Amino acid sequence: MKWAVIATWKMALDGTEKAAEILRMGGTAADAACEGVGMVEDEPSFHSVGYGGRPDKNGRVKLDGGFMDGDTLHFGAVASIEGFRSPVRIARSLIKGDANNFLCAQGAEEYAERNGFEKRDNLTEEAREIYEQEKERIQKLSAYDGHDTVCFLALDENGTLCAATSTSGLFMKENGRIGDTPVPGNGFYADSAVGCAAATGMGEEIMKGALSYAAVMYMSMGYSAMKAAQKAVDDLEKKLIERNGYANPMSLIAMDRNGAWGVGTNVDFPFCIADELHETELMIAKKHDGMTIIEAYENGD
Amino acid sequence: MKWAVIATWKMALDGTEKAAEILRMGGTAADAACEGVGMVEDEPSFHSVGYGGRPDKNGRVKLDGGFMDGDTLHFGAVASIEGFRSPVRIARSLIKGDANNFLCAQGAEEYAERNGFEKRDNLTEEAREIYEQEKERIQKLSAYDGHDTVCFLALDENGTLCAATSTSGLFMKENGRIGDTPVPGNGFYADSAVGCAAATGMGEEIMKGALSYAAVMYMSMGYSAMKAAQKAVDDLEKKLIERNGYANPMSLIAMDRNGAWGVGTNVDFPFCIADELHETELMIAKKHDGMTIIEAYENGD
Repeated sequence: MKWAVIATWKMALDGTEKAAEILRMGGTAADAACEGVGMVEDEPSFHSVGYGGRPDKNGRVKLDGGFMDGDTLHFGAVASIEGFRSPVRIARSLIKGDANNFLCAQGAEEYAERNGFEKRDNLTEEAREIYEQEKERIQKLSAYDGHDTVCFLALDENGTLCAATSTSGLFMKENGRIGDTPVPGNGFYADSAVGCAAATGMGEEIMKGALSYAAVMYMSMGYSAMKAAQKAVDDLEKKLIERNGYANPMSLIAMDRNGAWGVGTNVDFPFCIADELHETELMIAKKHDGMTIIEAYENGD
Repeated sequence: MKWAVIATWKMALDGTEKAAEILRMGGTAADAACEGVGMVEDEPSFHSVGYGGRPDKNGRVKLDGGFMDGDTLHFGAVASIEGFRSPVRIARSLIKGDANNFLCAQGAEEYAERNGFEKRDNLTEEAREIYEQEKERIQKLSAYDGHDTVCFLALDENGTLCAATSTSGLFMKENGRIGDTPVPGNGFYADSAVGCAAATGMGEEIMKGALSYAAVMYMSMGYSAMKAAQKAVDDLEKKLIERNGYANPMSLIAMDRNGAWGVGTNVDFPFCIADELHETELMIAKKHDGMTIIEAYENGD
């Protein structure tokens, strides 16, 4: 495959089309992945990423983002950053240099300000209202909604693989909470000689098994992207159920160096794909009797 | 082996003795690892951890710490926390619950305050003086000194493996910089059914290969702790040299579920061990002609 892209959730559909367009025109995997993520960050109707993202328990929207270049293994990441438009673009810019590639909170904000990144109050009126309604029953929240991270993986015609991620994290999270999204090896990983992967779901669960790195390591051992993604999720889920009696939701997208893609999940998980030979398409992965089934996403809603 | 402990750097010698004492008396791996780290955090003559740690570029001491329980795969971590005595103890307490296990900056400080953790101004007069001297030539700093993380791995007589870490991070780091130390899968990883590992060195390099998770995965594939640690470091170093022309310092300690230990490194790396059959001992690992050589640490200084 000359180029390919895969992205998490239905919300990534327009971004996938944009990423495909960039790759089709000979653009880089880095541009494709980051522009794809950036479109999701800008859309207020998506409640788990960027503008319109769900607030933390103090009613503030604090964002995470990550980026990795599979050629050099260099990465950039920001955690718990407030008041800027595009965490993924800030993360991407942090790839430069050997040190200080992963910044959090005030330090990340100072960096973004110093480097002229666009500011934005990401708390929409709708998100504020939902926060006001929900905070009354914050003690009763047992399951968290809205932990849908946008992740893009892209292969370009130079053979470069890149991963890019962005999220507002768990709704009602603690101030300063870091999930898997900005964390190398956990929320994302890319090695152009092997493959790349990125995760969505319960970040704290994903970080119990370095999920993205695990999938890429399985690819390096000869597993296809599909088998590698499923093995990474299935192995971790099995282990967590054995140890703790349950496993929280986690989903993984993967792509090998030839542009073949794979998905592993323990919940229903819509995702988007496009490549040299296929138009942008919305698919869904489901777990059924321990098997991962992948089909076209029929429900238009 | 009924119990065993391994720790990074010469500074961990007294803490290793204390951890060994805890384990010898039937104490838990969690207590042993955290008390060992805690001793290093409290000692002002160690300039890369806790009290007396080196400041960031603004002259402030911001600390990272991590903890993982190999039985449940649960972890706790704090990044860029200022003004508290023991990052590792705060990290350990964060293991409770499914979410919000990894906190940074102000959010981590609020949590620590709320939960009554002991406060401390970790900036010693000596560290302040060194900062004042060095900040003049901050533009010229090409190599970073003092990036020595303390890591403890412990096995107790119940077969539980734990990992605990603490550091002040890179001297003159950016505000909010997160290294590998508080990051699951990178700075530490523990799975009581397999083994555990923890890393020290250039955090940004370690995070390019999920170094601790990689070593544990190699153990799960049948490699000894020694071979697994060396393979994890050697593979990543080779890859980084191929891609970027160089690799920054990284060292890894590992222990399997039977208490056999291993070390991988690409620099001279002192470490401490103790187990049921061996008194606490200071050793050193060196790289010579591509081979890792391990010997008693003779130099008393």
